[in-house]
Amino acid sequence: MKRSFIREILESIDEETISFAGGLPNEKLFPLEDLKNATKKVLENPKIYQYTISNGINELRELIANRYTKEGFPTSKENILITTGSQQAMYILAKYFQNKDITIEEPSYLGAMNIFRLNGLNMQGVKLLNNGVDINDFKNSFNKTKLTYLIPDFQNPKATTYSEEKRAQVANIIESQNGILIEDSPYSELFFEKKEKSISSRLPKNSFHLGSFSKTLAPSFRIGWIRADEELLKPLMIIKESIDLHSCGVSQYILCEYLKDEKRYENHLQNIRDDYKQKATYFSEQLKQIIPEFEHELPKGGMFLYGNLKGVDSFALVQKCLEKKVVYVPGNQFYIDKIPNGEIRFNYTHSSFEEIKRGLELIKSCL
Amino acid sequence: MKRSFIREILESIDEETISFAGGLPNEKLFPLEDLKNATKKVLENPKIYQYTISNGINELRELIANRYTKEGFPTSKENILITTGSQQAMYILAKYFQNKDITIEEPSYLGAMNIFRLNGLNMQGVKLLNNGVDINDFKNSFNKTKLTYLIPDFQNPKATTYSEEKRAQVANIIESQNGILIEDSPYSELFFEKKEKSISSRLPKNSFHLGSFSKTLAPSFRIGWIRADEELLKPLMIIKESIDLHSCGVSQYILCEYLKDEKRYENHLQNIRDDYKQKATYFSEQLKQIIPEFEHELPKGGMFLYGNLKGVDSFALVQKCLEKKVVYVPGNQFYIDKIPNGEIRFNYTHSSFEEIKRGLELIKSCL
Repeated sequence: MKRSFIREILESIDEETISFAGGLPNEKLFPLEDLKNATKKVLENPKIYQYTISNGINELRELIANRYTKEGFPTSKENILITTGSQQAMYILAKYFQNKDITIEEPSYLGAMNIFRLNGLNMQGVKLLNNGVDINDFKNSFNKTKLTYLIPDFQNPKATTYSEEKRAQVANIIESQNGILIEDSPYSELFFEKKEKSISSRLPKNSFHLGSFSKTLAPSFRIGWIRADEELLKPLMIIKESIDLHSCGVSQYILCEYLKDEKRYENHLQNIRDDYKQKATYFSEQLKQIIPEFEHELPKGGMFLYGNLKGVDSFALVQKCLEKKVVYVPGNQFYIDKIPNGEIRFNYTHSSFEEIKRGLELIKSCL
Repeated sequence: MKRSFIREILESIDEETISFAGGLPNEKLFPLEDLKNATKKVLENPKIYQYTISNGINELRELIANRYTKEGFPTSKENILITTGSQQAMYILAKYFQNKDITIEEPSYLGAMNIFRLNGLNMQGVKLLNNGVDINDFKNSFNKTKLTYLIPDFQNPKATTYSEEKRAQVANIIESQNGILIEDSPYSELFFEKKEKSISSRLPKNSFHLGSFSKTLAPSFRIGWIRADEELLKPLMIIKESIDLHSCGVSQYILCEYLKDEKRYENHLQNIRDDYKQKATYFSEQLKQIIPEFEHELPKGGMFLYGNLKGVDSFALVQKCLEKKVVYVPGNQFYIDKIPNGEIRFNYTHSSFEEIKRGLELIKSCL
């Protein structure tokens, strides 16, 4: 087991380095005043400091459930388990499904792959095309594994968005096998044009839908959740409780207070979407000018821009880039066998326009 | 795997029930004003909302390390890993030592036993006497397992405090075998007369010492830690990172701000100690009057009073008690094989004097 490349980078680079590596939200967009006011309000309530129930405080689970229901996916608080970030949601599921076979997209989220390895899951990669998984590959793999981990909205790292048709096909395959979908959805609110309908909403009895406030409000609260059928959630409660008894109570109360004003949250989300869309567009334009040989598509949402520098070993390149004080994540990190390739994941949300331009010029100078 | 009896009780009892069950601190002793001020202060700093490093923010690790050093156990921030409560510290260690044999006290902490089971550890129980483990039993078991989990200060559930001699003997056995000690120490600050010297301080290269702010400041922050040799900590980092990336950042910053004023924290600790000592004494006196057949000793610190109702099945009794709206944890829950017995763990920190008297009278009426 090795530590995550991204976490190691995050902890070792200095302040001067331009980082396109992490999945860091733009902290300039944190709704500081509103969070401050929400915090001050809950501080008057002494019970925020005491132990609370393992599945998460009722009010927060209700608020999350209501958002699903409003979008046409009927959900009650009994379908929600609060977790310490959606990272923990994934860990709990990996522990529950330990030593099983699992179908994943290739490339896929590094953090999930590390968790699967740690819990003895045997990953089978399926090629990710521009509109979702290669459906024949997926069918063949899923028929054997009956379990899959997918990120259908603005995928990490590839920024792929599954088409409506692909979502329906995937749902049909899972249902026909009575299998299980783990749908990781931290970016679904960060759409540029429209919110996609989750695959889980077509499979309410066969799915775990993972959400998080880390990308929409603030990562440091470490509050995410699993949405699932109540019976499916039950065995996960034992694992959740064993890992940390419950997620941070103070964070849960602050989020509750903040989320009560739905319109305020919607406005905030729209701010992020507008900002990230602008950043993504700028990043892509600069790439075309500075590194035109980098093949890529403009993402439809999320935090990443992914592409290919054909004929270049992007893992070797990043070592040179680090010396010049710029960093990205090389694509091989997102593959099960980490075979060298020219793929690169850029995070575009955390840097300023100036940093984007300068960072890309520095990379160009290393080529 | 079953859920924890205590967590299930905590979630199912109504507000009228007098609970001697959980390990809940007395919320009347939370330093509300000081925590509020510390929180307001850190709210001015936007970085409290961003992702932070996996092992915990530097300032907090330094503050914790300094406390060890001051007590004669030289420690630097590199020896500290911040965890989401000491529950997570235990989970991380159980994951790291999965499927191994481990020597534990009997009775022992229910939450730890559940974690060990979940991670395939094979527990070997050693009898806990009034001054620590039975040393011959311990030696025989440890010679085989080379790994032990102990709670030497005001043990949970038995409230036992290891004698100086017993601490030295245990340390010698562990060192002679070059084995590993996991020393769980959530109650060590809650002493009535004097702070005991940890066994880990005699075994700096062979120990994991677990601490927490849950019993001294506020459980809902979910901030605990592992103190260990830097090399021993390294592999744990990978597991920590996989489970939740990092513990709640907002909580860490608030605690940092609060702990900067050492004297204020010391005064607060002294308040808790005084209050809990008074409660323990009162609980014991009431027991002698109301249920004189309950054999027990006055604890020297911590949160629990443990004893024996000879000839009674305390697990059967608690079902009757629940109907009368009073609850405790039956002793059999703390044994590996859960064989019925007359032992009972009472928490004395969370109830008022009136509730203690009334609760014990209700229990008496069920006998």
